[in-house]
Amino acid sequence: MYRSHTCGQLRLKDAGDKVTLAGWVQTVRKFGAITFIDLRDRYGITQLLFGEELNQELDQNPLGREFVLRATGIVQERSNKNANLATGDIEINISSFKILNKSAVPPFTIQDETDGGDDLRMRYRYLDLRRNAVKKNIELRYAVSRAARNYLHQQEFIDIETPFLIKSTPEGARDFVVPSRMNPGQFYALPQSPQTFKQLLMVSGYDRYYQVVKCFRDEDLRADRQPEFTQIDCEMSFVGQEDILNMFEGMIKHIFKEVKGIDYAEPVERMSWDDAMWNYGTDKPDTRFGMKITNLKTPYTVFETKDSSKKALPLGEGLGGAFGVFKNAETVVAIAVPGAAEYSRKQTDELAEWVKRPQIAMGGLAFVKVNADGTFKSSFDKFFNADQLKALAAFCNAGPDNLILILGGAEEKTRKAISELRLEMAERLGLRKPGEFKLLWVLDFPLFEYSAEENRWDARHHPFTSPKPQHVDIMINNNPVIENAEKYLEHPYADIKANAYDMVLNGNEIGGGSIRIYQRELQEKMFAALGMSKEEAIHKFGFLLGAFEFGAPPHGGIAFGFDRLCAILGGSESIRDFIAFPKNNAGRDVMLDAPSAIDEKQLDELNLKLDVK
Amino acid sequence: MYRSHTCGQLRLKDAGDKVTLAGWVQTVRKFGAITFIDLRDRYGITQLLFGEELNQELDQNPLGREFVLRATGIVQERSNKNANLATGDIEINISSFKILNKSAVPPFTIQDETDGGDDLRMRYRYLDLRRNAVKKNIELRYAVSRAARNYLHQQEFIDIETPFLIKSTPEGARDFVVPSRMNPGQFYALPQSPQTFKQLLMVSGYDRYYQVVKCFRDEDLRADRQPEFTQIDCEMSFVGQEDILNMFEGMIKHIFKEVKGIDYAEPVERMSWDDAMWNYGTDKPDTRFGMKITNLKTPYTVFETKDSSKKALPLGEGLGGAFGVFKNAETVVAIAVPGAAEYSRKQTDELAEWVKRPQIAMGGLAFVKVNADGTFKSSFDKFFNADQLKALAAFCNAGPDNLILILGGAEEKTRKAISELRLEMAERLGLRKPGEFKLLWVLDFPLFEYSAEENRWDARHHPFTSPKPQHVDIMINNNPVIENAEKYLEHPYADIKANAYDMVLNGNEIGGGSIRIYQRELQEKMFAALGMSKEEAIHKFGFLLGAFEFGAPPHGGIAFGFDRLCAILGGSESIRDFIAFPKNNAGRDVMLDAPSAIDEKQLDELNLKLDVK
Repeated sequence: MYRSHTCGQLRLKDAGDKVTLAGWVQTVRKFGAITFIDLRDRYGITQLLFGEELNQELDQNPLGREFVLRATGIVQERSNKNANLATGDIEINISSFKILNKSAVPPFTIQDETDGGDDLRMRYRYLDLRRNAVKKNIELRYAVSRAARNYLHQQEFIDIETPFLIKSTPEGARDFVVPSRMNPGQFYALPQSPQTFKQLLMVSGYDRYYQVVKCFRDEDLRADRQPEFTQIDCEMSFVGQEDILNMFEGMIKHIFKEVKGIDYAEPVERMSWDDAMWNYGTDKPDTRFGMKITNLKTPYTVFETKDSSKKALPLGEGLGGAFGVFKNAETVVAIAVPGAAEYSRKQTDELAEWVKRPQIAMGGLAFVKVNADGTFKSSFDKFFNADQLKALAAFCNAGPDNLILILGGAEEKTRKAISELRLEMAERLGLRKPGEFKLLWVLDFPLFEYSAEENRWDARHHPFTSPKPQHVDIMINNNPVIENAEKYLEHPYADIKANAYDMVLNGNEIGGGSIRIYQRELQEKMFAALGMSKEEAIHKFGFLLGAFEFGAPPHGGIAFGFDRLCAILGGSESIRDFIAFPKNNAGRDVMLDAPSAIDEKQLDELNLKLDVK
Repeated sequence: MYRSHTCGQLRLKDAGDKVTLAGWVQTVRKFGAITFIDLRDRYGITQLLFGEELNQELDQNPLGREFVLRATGIVQERSNKNANLATGDIEINISSFKILNKSAVPPFTIQDETDGGDDLRMRYRYLDLRRNAVKKNIELRYAVSRAARNYLHQQEFIDIETPFLIKSTPEGARDFVVPSRMNPGQFYALPQSPQTFKQLLMVSGYDRYYQVVKCFRDEDLRADRQPEFTQIDCEMSFVGQEDILNMFEGMIKHIFKEVKGIDYAEPVERMSWDDAMWNYGTDKPDTRFGMKITNLKTPYTVFETKDSSKKALPLGEGLGGAFGVFKNAETVVAIAVPGAAEYSRKQTDELAEWVKRPQIAMGGLAFVKVNADGTFKSSFDKFFNADQLKALAAFCNAGPDNLILILGGAEEKTRKAISELRLEMAERLGLRKPGEFKLLWVLDFPLFEYSAEENRWDARHHPFTSPKPQHVDIMINNNPVIENAEKYLEHPYADIKANAYDMVLNGNEIGGGSIRIYQRELQEKMFAALGMSKEEAIHKFGFLLGAFEFGAPPHGGIAFGFDRLCAILGGSESIRDFIAFPKNNAGRDVMLDAPSAIDEKQLDELNLKLDVK
């Protein structure tokens, strides 16, 4: 070993000991004949003192930032202690040193707040990873995986590796494919998830499976997507939904405790998908704060519940009659923002501009201020009298000092817009508190969603998700074909709910899963509902259908988005800083300069030709 | 949960309890109105007793092998106990049951000794995985990875995921490549190992890294190779070879203790590569037994040590003069097989046939029997007198009752053949004891090997391996170009030893690694020695050369072949039974039927055309 101790280890009690440290030069400070060096390694920073007698040697071997240094000396108490540093009570009085490697001047500073832009930091990722701000993310990531593994191990789960070179079965997202040299003209696919393998393991009787595993999706990348990502992937046999919810609520609480020191004692809130969509306009609401949505007009068709308790504003006709914008809009929704009634004209104008931005793309924003004195001020005063505004405020549960914000327009767009606006207002009001964590189970998703393009059903989750037990008969006994596209909502399949569940943390989906189909007949019906012919189903998933004939147990599972989970626990919205070597939005690794062209010989061996348009 | 207990859980102390089990029907035995069912799950087997009152229900719902059953009843003491079964003292007197899923008759029996052939078992791998013989391998695999992770965690290693979509840098083995849709005409490669990434992590200061990680090599598959395989991959900074040897000797001993209950107390034997080649004819000798090789003639040039203590048989001239076969052979080697002097003519003839098989391909086998009475009997009696045979036996350290086996021929072939013969004789004599484990470090490998085809140096390990500290200057100060191909052994580079080490277990290489180069100049020299131009080096490994300019610490590491390690610990020579979903020798997954053709549309999106010859 090049060192006797790490740079984070020594304390006052070690004073007088002779030690050897090795690490990187963080700073060099010269005071006359004396030089102070902050030496950094993974474990911390220790101050080295180079006295007068080393002056000449230092002159001959000048030290620069990021030089790799080995130095030996005596631990001594510091006169000028640094309370911000674990080693801040001591310094090392150096007697000899050796430069192990030099460093060019780094292209950006290796500090928490760096002067390096995103591109530069990615190109020199190995330097970026030295920064404490990134290092603590990488360490947190390890702590999360370690906590998850330990919990699952205690619960008798077993880590079983599933293959990476599998079969391409394009469903939903695009596969990355791998040409096979030994099987000319044929390709492997990289797994989008180990879904079918973990189900096969249940058929094999392994009962409780987990894996922390890379998955691959060839999608057009959005800001915070990566072509390769990691899942905590789990599956259990002989369980129902309740068992899974309890098991993985336990896991996430264990992670909170181990990684963040947080006792998440209360049970995780549960919410139906209907309620999530109705009250928050999204299937992943941030429940750290309220500010529920009020539906002033037609309920959303997408989650038509036939639940008579969910009524639109009784003033609907009045609204429509008096104010054309509301009348013509398919959907009109509102949120009551607490303590924002004093918003100035400038502020409400700015909010109106905010909803008109291309990302939100609404036509405008209506508002009602509920003043502290019980009076009202709205953006549509000439259409509504005080009684109408009072009724509207009451319907929105808006108390004094609330600002009611109202959006109207086409259903889906308006629903998304009000959900975004709700988050934005919460952000502005400081209601999305960093360090506060609120978990939520969203349950009872629809099994299918309607594909207008193909006039057929799509799987909302994936084709292996089971319907609710009480809906199995609806699925088996009805023809999935949609005769009348206009009336698809009247098709019996529109009512089928899935035995599926998402875990949401602070408004982010961190995990999702379902109880699976385990009967061949039902799985075949599912494939048929998705427009797959029998031949196609056999070609793509024959192995699974076959497995279901040999004693498949009831089973279900869940997969957590490991990158995102780490990011949220680390207080960030971006997963990229929690991945050691991420790719950019074009799917490129700019450090490696990958992907890149390959040799003609390689192509030839793979029986391929480029055909770049 | 569908069950209150597992099938491996109940004991006599539970008698009287009402329990519910779920699992697979292993056997059905009817005795008149009573039916016994052995119910199996991951945890064991429990006997279920269906009494007379369930007769009718059983007739209506007949149970077959591998049916999935849920059954409730009372635990009771068995009259006919089964000492071979953990649950053998009890049975469950069933009061109600439900068939959760039926099963077709499996294509082979789900038992330790199955009637299924290899192909059938692979096609129905999900059934094969139910067999206890396979299940215990999968469980052992998990136990090994768990033990390795726990040890490395205790030693402050941190698991950091490295990317799978990287850059193709064909060195040695072929890369699997992945066409990029977003970057037309360009490809990612799947990693053959995370080598350069773990080195970058050392440059980043992570100090102690590990990963249990999939790697990929597109090689023509031999019997026991897989295109995807798993490594326990580790790297450390600020260490020398001795630190690595100690750290990973600790890891493997921890695995022995945790997984096999074996206290491997003695230090792991260390052997130089020279000695391994000289004494065993291989760089991965099985040291559970002796039977060292005696070199009767020219020392092997490949490990010419210039060590005068290693002499050939002084009778060399005599040998050559008297016996043409020995005279003409480039290399003549012998082993003394204990207790085999009584081998019959038939047996020695059979051994001669064994060495003539195509896999060994020797011309013949000479032998000398050292009889218990001190006389000799050889296959070349007419050329040698008793004194000469006596001298030869003494030189081979052959005592009474030994059978000396002698092979002669071209150096490399003969060396391999005697090594194989040594293993074969040990096998026949029962010296390769299952359950006995002997570890070995092989050290001091040559850094380079000569490529006759290209008349240049190849890296014996990989291009990132450092020379021994005392050989760095030889490397830096000499031109790597080989002027005279015939005299390549006289080139200074032929003497350079690597700072590299292999861990060998029972004659199998289970891990290998090295201290790495961490200076740009030396790394560039290495690339040049391997015939790489400066441009090529920059194109392929510019990121690493760049990283070495910003303070790279001294570092080194090791990678263990996880599949093979598990196989050996599990007492098998074949890795395939230790992989949940392996591929066959043509790289195919016969269960999935992968690889397979992909859609025209997929090819088109990837800007590719098939060009199958």
